Amino acid sequence: MSEKTRKPAYANRIQKVDSSAVKEILRLASASNTISFGGGLPAPESFPIDKIAEVTNELLMNNGPLVMQYSSSEGIPELRQKLLDRCEKHLGIKNQSIENIVFTNGSQQGLDLVAKVFINEGDVVFVEEPTYLAAIMAFQPYEPKIVGIATDNDGVIPDDLKAKLEEYPQAKLIYLIPDFQNPSGRTMTAERRKEILEIVKDYDIMILEDNPYGELRYTGEFVPPIKAFDEDEKVLYMSTFSKVLAPGLRLGWVIGDADVLSNIISAKQASDLQCNTLSQYICNSYLEKYDLDDHIAKINELYGHRHDVMLKALDENFPAEVTWTRPEGGLFLWMIFPDDVDTTELLKVCLKHGVAYVPGAPFFANDVMNNTCRINYSYVDDDTIVRGVKAMADAYREYRG
Amino acid sequence: MSEKTRKPAYANRIQKVDSSAVKEILRLASASNTISFGGGLPAPESFPIDKIAEVTNELLMNNGPLVMQYSSSEGIPELRQKLLDRCEKHLGIKNQSIENIVFTNGSQQGLDLVAKVFINEGDVVFVEEPTYLAAIMAFQPYEPKIVGIATDNDGVIPDDLKAKLEEYPQAKLIYLIPDFQNPSGRTMTAERRKEILEIVKDYDIMILEDNPYGELRYTGEFVPPIKAFDEDEKVLYMSTFSKVLAPGLRLGWVIGDADVLSNIISAKQASDLQCNTLSQYICNSYLEKYDLDDHIAKINELYGHRHDVMLKALDENFPAEVTWTRPEGGLFLWMIFPDDVDTTELLKVCLKHGVAYVPGAPFFANDVMNNTCRINYSYVDDDTIVRGVKAMADAYREYRG
Repeated sequence: MSEKTRKPAYANRIQKVDSSAVKEILRLASASNTISFGGGLPAPESFPIDKIAEVTNELLMNNGPLVMQYSSSEGIPELRQKLLDRCEKHLGIKNQSIENIVFTNGSQQGLDLVAKVFINEGDVVFVEEPTYLAAIMAFQPYEPKIVGIATDNDGVIPDDLKAKLEEYPQAKLIYLIPDFQNPSGRTMTAERRKEILEIVKDYDIMILEDNPYGELRYTGEFVPPIKAFDEDEKVLYMSTFSKVLAPGLRLGWVIGDADVLSNIISAKQASDLQCNTLSQYICNSYLEKYDLDDHIAKINELYGHRHDVMLKALDENFPAEVTWTRPEGGLFLWMIFPDDVDTTELLKVCLKHGVAYVPGAPFFANDVMNNTCRINYSYVDDDTIVRGVKAMADAYREYRG
Repeated sequence: MSEKTRKPAYANRIQKVDSSAVKEILRLASASNTISFGGGLPAPESFPIDKIAEVTNELLMNNGPLVMQYSSSEGIPELRQKLLDRCEKHLGIKNQSIENIVFTNGSQQGLDLVAKVFINEGDVVFVEEPTYLAAIMAFQPYEPKIVGIATDNDGVIPDDLKAKLEEYPQAKLIYLIPDFQNPSGRTMTAERRKEILEIVKDYDIMILEDNPYGELRYTGEFVPPIKAFDEDEKVLYMSTFSKVLAPGLRLGWVIGDADVLSNIISAKQASDLQCNTLSQYICNSYLEKYDLDDHIAKINELYGHRHDVMLKALDENFPAEVTWTRPEGGLFLWMIFPDDVDTTELLKVCLKHGVAYVPGAPFFANDVMNNTCRINYSYVDDDTIVRGVKAMADAYREYRG
């Protein structure tokens, strides 16, 4: 644009979107000679390509006009019903009917649409401290006040949630990732889940439960989603095919109260009419023809092994002053360095050593801990994990001088 | 939700989304025994299913992990470049580089993202009177003041645009569909396009040019898009594969100033990370392997014929007091009944006769003309068009008593 060209001012909301952290991850992840623990990418070798190719070819050959045409904003009913059945059988989420589920372009669009439906400028949204950085990014354009709730190894700390609710009784949403949390890898206990439901009962606030990783458990006992304990329809539950089938299909879903859902569907229609028709039918045929549980068991074997390899490499290479979480599933673990370490500075040294991660800072809403970082172990193979952790440890020693 | 359940108030914006008109169209279109001129669906028999199946199968077999994985928010560069080349060759849109194009989930998401980037509550957005109703629906959540600009057979009336700009000098956007407009079917003349660019030059306002139908011309002479005359980067240009390949792929694009685009990409990333990876590669392979122009020529033969059949049927069945536009392309024509006809009432009679259309009212921002309606001729075959028009004419006679 030439300097003299006139153009209108951007909306206020756009100045609040800071995507630099995510862009940096994507940039780092794409540098070919750098070992990246940065992204949250599933292992491409885990995708059931042959099966997806088979159902896709069948769909195009037998139902081409249907799968290439427009479809409804809420999504095709046969797949919505299959997912509800799966939620009931595997997760204990009961009494949901077809009006209680809508498709979204991955979970990310669920975050956007829920925010679009609920948040006025200045409304309070609670998040775990730390939380998924792209959730903050999704909420920001609606200009909320984002308030962090303190967490421990069992999840959100109830007393802090109570205190924040007293301070902000009109808070609209609390965003939680109870299973193998992004970025911390921690899982909220069942007791804590029930306690949180009990606490929010007396307020208008709704719980937005994000569960992209719940089925990726490598060890320990299954904990039902908060939604499974939700007798008062206070929970909007989100999940996705991105981590259990393939992210390129861009298919997630929101389950919850029908009145809220009808507004989410209107917002979906206004935003982009509908999800990809072909993707919906691919997932539907896959569930019809194959056992997704078998596939998830294979992913869990692969990722569980990588998880073990990474923990062993960390144990062997880092001094006792550095600690990390030991997740029971999911894609990430969380490292905590001594207080005076700044992981954004440390990253520069790591890059010289050919390894990358995501510094912890952008995952915090309020009380930033600069001495933290997120490490992914799903995307890289055993040997690369070992080399990458060694390179990180070398870089850390250099950084400490 | 039980009556005693507490939930937060919805955002103000959500009370402004009225999707009832679109829902009604979709409902009518799905009633199996009703002839629907209501939707804007492409003819499913026009989809090049065999070719799409072939490239899809090749992609999954040879590059499965790539096409199932996450990709970038702006979209795969090879397809962005192909589309820019196509725009230059076919439409005269020159001097655009890869930073000037981003993918969206159909054109609908382009409307949402441009609104998200520019509109603060109360900002003025100009639209043609009448305009695409789902554009109004996309803008409404950002709470603008939507102001209609008067049109004639040549497009937006320059004097009315000048007057409205004097009244609202800070207007942010003017939304235009210059080619085979939805709903009117009219095409803006080249002179008018240049005149509008000249008028907006002295203001900050940007032009949002939506061109989903431009390549579907059945008669008359090509008119370059406004973007082809745009020397000052005042135009954001949108188009889509929905009407020339298949809408189920959900792939559209926005072309424009790189600084605006970088904000649209950030908004895209916050909204849903990226477009469907598989769809992007399908379109890319299709363009690589096949001649899209050949395919479009076939669509134009099919739709051009249906367009002729519908005009002939209208000529033969309706009295002189009823008029309609004679589009040179696209999917729709626009009927104008005598002033005292209410097409929402007439629709009820039409439904008894087994035929449906979209009443004109929801296409107007301000000065509603209740005596208008939109008719689609792309989706139904010749015989159905003739029967449907006869049924409409019968219903009209009954309505007039």
